[in-house]
Amino acid sequence: MPGIIKERLFTPGPTPLLMDAQISTLAAGNVHHRTEAFRKIMSETLTLLKYYYDTQNDVLIFASSGTGAMEGSLSNLLSPGERILVGTAGKFGERWLGLAKAYGIEAVIVESPYGQPVNIEALKEKLANEGPFRAVYIQATETSTAVMNNVRALGEAVKAYPETALVVDAITGLGTSDLRVEEWGLDIVIGGSQKAAMIPPGLAFVSVSEKAWGLIANSKLPRFYFDFAKERKNQAKGETAYTPATTLVIGLHAALEYIKKLGRENLIANAALLAEASRAGAAALGLKLFAQSSPANAATAIHAPEGMDSGAIVKELRTRFGAIIANGQGSMKGQIFRLAHLGYYDIADLFAIFAALEIALQKLGQKVELGSSVRAVQEVYLSHVK
Amino acid sequence: MPGIIKERLFTPGPTPLLMDAQISTLAAGNVHHRTEAFRKIMSETLTLLKYYYDTQNDVLIFASSGTGAMEGSLSNLLSPGERILVGTAGKFGERWLGLAKAYGIEAVIVESPYGQPVNIEALKEKLANEGPFRAVYIQATETSTAVMNNVRALGEAVKAYPETALVVDAITGLGTSDLRVEEWGLDIVIGGSQKAAMIPPGLAFVSVSEKAWGLIANSKLPRFYFDFAKERKNQAKGETAYTPATTLVIGLHAALEYIKKLGRENLIANAALLAEASRAGAAALGLKLFAQSSPANAATAIHAPEGMDSGAIVKELRTRFGAIIANGQGSMKGQIFRLAHLGYYDIADLFAIFAALEIALQKLGQKVELGSSVRAVQEVYLSHVK
Repeated sequence: MPGIIKERLFTPGPTPLLMDAQISTLAAGNVHHRTEAFRKIMSETLTLLKYYYDTQNDVLIFASSGTGAMEGSLSNLLSPGERILVGTAGKFGERWLGLAKAYGIEAVIVESPYGQPVNIEALKEKLANEGPFRAVYIQATETSTAVMNNVRALGEAVKAYPETALVVDAITGLGTSDLRVEEWGLDIVIGGSQKAAMIPPGLAFVSVSEKAWGLIANSKLPRFYFDFAKERKNQAKGETAYTPATTLVIGLHAALEYIKKLGRENLIANAALLAEASRAGAAALGLKLFAQSSPANAATAIHAPEGMDSGAIVKELRTRFGAIIANGQGSMKGQIFRLAHLGYYDIADLFAIFAALEIALQKLGQKVELGSSVRAVQEVYLSHVK
Repeated sequence: MPGIIKERLFTPGPTPLLMDAQISTLAAGNVHHRTEAFRKIMSETLTLLKYYYDTQNDVLIFASSGTGAMEGSLSNLLSPGERILVGTAGKFGERWLGLAKAYGIEAVIVESPYGQPVNIEALKEKLANEGPFRAVYIQATETSTAVMNNVRALGEAVKAYPETALVVDAITGLGTSDLRVEEWGLDIVIGGSQKAAMIPPGLAFVSVSEKAWGLIANSKLPRFYFDFAKERKNQAKGETAYTPATTLVIGLHAALEYIKKLGRENLIANAALLAEASRAGAAALGLKLFAQSSPANAATAIHAPEGMDSGAIVKELRTRFGAIIANGQGSMKGQIFRLAHLGYYDIADLFAIFAALEIALQKLGQKVELGSSVRAVQEVYLSHVK
């Protein structure tokens, strides 16, 4: 090893931590959750989350990974015998199916190929002809393929069904894409702490619309830890039904204050700029995008060069430069690698990772013009920033 | 305010943090969970947890509060139509009933008065005459009343029923009391991070016996996030099914290393000594214990003097000395206060809190001989330590 190598995350969650948030977390380690001081932090954090979500709907926090909130979005809305409609085009879409199976709920599925967005027209057609459905499930951004879905079009269609809620997994969509919770009719929107919110994993968020609360009031599937109505009552007072993950909440408070100062729109624009620059960088190296259309702002999935295992690129970047990027998941493993740019990333991170990628590819036997992808990234930057 | 007041927790969770664990958490903020480095930490932490539990059974970690693992202990063991037996004598015992209700499971109940241990003979009688039960639920220590239950006697009784698992909420029992997981037949034992494990809230633990795994394999209640069998498969490889709360796991690793160095038995003996000293301190002040018998090592619940609201003591200690103690819960609120000594507490903490308590009581109009309870605490210390 020739010298210092700093470890850097370029993965679509966990993402780099905001240092302010980390320091707040440490400083406030010995906090008790049943105190006025913590209730104040909790209430402020929920208010900041509403800013982050850009919604006036209730927002709740759970001590769990995002999957816990996904489970809650099923167990709180459904009753035995009811059906759901699922749009999937990747590993996270498939998680809805696993959840439905676990609860014995019939799921009608629109499955689009990996690399493409979910076919919204097909969902609308099923909604019209194969209902009733208690809820429709989709990802805002499918992280496994780095493709963005048109939740706006879906939301506008679901609005016509007063007995059907739209549930959006926005775990990597929040803070990376425009999501108009009320305007588009996104009834339940799920987020997670280790994404654009810039803190470690361990917290999940949900926003819940009035329409969803109405359906939740009549639903019968069992739930206890992820009981949305119980948490709504508690969190309105800055309390939680069960012990909250206090240090993570305090870290989240600090990170959301940073995001508010930065501006929610600027956080999203930052991800969009880095995504555009990443696509330009890949193109300059002759690498193909995995997304056939509608590439995500959260991460960019890139095909390895013909005949090269993407794992070799992941390994080379890891060992040589300490840069951790994500391989493909499931059948995409070995085919693609994923470069994240959601949350606390800046353009200099991209300069570094593309220069490193050029060297990695060269060491793996590819012909690479050094500096070519960095130049493409720089040009995108200069086209947007004075 | 006359000068510096340090805030100190004397609550039965969260408890004071081990600083080493906090620093490890901060230093390792930017870790990714799908890496060899984290898998190693996760596997080591699970091994250390087995040491902490004193068991060879599987131990699993969840990103949730302890209640999540309590829910899992029901949803993983039961099928619709099966029944459970619950021993309760406090707020946490009552949580089993809420869980059973949420899942539509019939619970047969042995309810003992607050301040007493659960009547084990009555449980044995119901086990023999009102079964079959798929599982029996109890607390090792009922935190709301600071009473310890005789899980050994219960475990030995449940052993005779091969189709019945014993589930023990040891959230405040672990690290404060002798628990022989295999020898006593404790099939599922639940723990939490913010107790004797000395780190912030956000992680739950469960140990699962072979007997319990056999029952889990045939059970039908829905579960997804708290699916024990799925986590067993993942955690055997240092993985988790869903994103783990990495920073808390890293903090836990550091805390458990400290506990291993200290010695599990010494951690328990420390809590026992502090509990004995707390009882002596209360007696020296003429204060009555809430526990009629079998007081816990984790915390001591003490009646406020006749005619005084215990909330006034809590408030006086809080504002004057920054010492946070717990009021009673539910109907015990205003009647008792609870002084915790589980995990990272030492005898000097007790010297401080009893001296502070003497002043608080005096300021609230009680006649108090200053130094009298501190002397009682010192005497207990000297009777045990050379």
